[in-house]
Amino acid sequence: MTIKYCGLLTMTFQKEITLKAKNRGFHLVTNEILSQITEIAKVKVGIANIFIKHTSASLTINENVSSDVLRDLEKHFNKFVPEEAPYYEHIYEGSDDMPAHIKSSVLGQSLSIPITNGKLNLGTWQGIYFGEHRNYGGSRKVVVTIIGE
Amino acid sequence: MTIKYCGLLTMTFQKEITLKAKNRGFHLVTNEILSQITEIAKVKVGIANIFIKHTSASLTINENVSSDVLRDLEKHFNKFVPEEAPYYEHIYEGSDDMPAHIKSSVLGQSLSIPITNGKLNLGTWQGIYFGEHRNYGGSRKVVVTIIGE
Amino acid sequence: MTIKYCGLLTMTFQKEITLKAKNRGFHLVTNEILSQITEIAKVKVGIANIFIKHTSASLTINENVSSDVLRDLEKHFNKFVPEEAPYYEHIYEGSDDMPAHIKSSVLGQSLSIPITNGKLNLGTWQGIYFGEHRNYGGSRKVVVTIIGE
Repeated sequence: MTIKYCGLLTMTFQKEITLKAKNRGFHLVTNEILSQITEIAKVKVGIANIFIKHTSASLTINENVSSDVLRDLEKHFNKFVPEEAPYYEHIYEGSDDMPAHIKSSVLGQSLSIPITNGKLNLGTWQGIYFGEHRNYGGSRKVVVTIIGE
Repeated sequence: MTIKYCGLLTMTFQKEITLKAKNRGFHLVTNEILSQITEIAKVKVGIANIFIKHTSASLTINENVSSDVLRDLEKHFNKFVPEEAPYYEHIYEGSDDMPAHIKSSVLGQSLSIPITNGKLNLGTWQGIYFGEHRNYGGSRKVVVTIIGE
Repeated sequence: MTIKYCGLLTMTFQKEITLKAKNRGFHLVTNEILSQITEIAKVKVGIANIFIKHTSASLTINENVSSDVLRDLEKHFNKFVPEEAPYYEHIYEGSDDMPAHIKSSVLGQSLSIPITNGKLNLGTWQGIYFGEHRNYGGSRKVVVTIIGE
């Protein structure tokens, strides 16, 4: 258990980074993100907000070892957010488009993660997942905002 | 890509606002919220936390142009969070009540969005959706908290 | 409606706490969390980030009175995130494991809640739910980070 209590030294840091284009599905991107925000090492205690500027992709946290979790997540969401549901009206951008919007809202477009001693304070098995929900999504923009001391 | 790094000038701002009563379904409320927090213009870099104080409504981010996305989201959730599931015990406030609680937890009651140069740093196609999950939800209270410089 | 505007006095506070082991299902943990972060009383205005360091549990907000909402949530997710789906590859840690990962991502591992006058600014009916998605999850670690004045 750690307790930190500070005053008068809070800072705000923000950077827009890019995630390279990826295949449809889930991808572990902890290192791709951290390698672009090395400034986090200066923060003793704070919060990192990681926000993806798209409505057909998502950010979530899940298991950082087994690649089958990535694949099973994709299969789950493909079943429970089906393509070509008969009631979809928003179909003119392809059968993957409306399901991508739904997955993006269910999983979320932002993460708020504690920072402790210059690192994201993730659990042993936690990693950052990027969900690419379009068949061809291209590169994706992410804004990282850090507030802390 | 922008980088901002600041110290000693962080501020916290908070305001409770009201969203007018709306029909059941999803509604684009970016402008209804922004028009009530004009103080955001003073913030160069920070985070806005937008929190809805209810358990049968939700806030999420999705496509800000096509109104059919709003309707398709409602139809999706009505199918995958059904009313009158035979195993519901919480039924005394109406058949729309327990599904509203589930939708509220799946979609979430708060958003954390980066602020850059006095504006929410949303993607081109991103807007704030309010999900009214009750048949007659009435007006809804939202707390906006901004931390930044 | 309240407006607060402050400068030069922002502080960051962080503490790692433990939630006692609980049965699979949803549990109202508002008091178990608040009793471990009494320092919140010193914060006039700010944000509390509550982050669970696990990938098979979740934190969400829902109804704080009726215990049947807790049970109905569990039944809903057991149906719509089934065990033993034929397409799961990640099965070697038990039939409850892959569904637990999915539920954790759908519901989320963190909450960002406004603080006003020394208290979490929750709605009248809002409480913090802990979702234990493993059959035997054990105790769970949570990091609370508070930024405010």
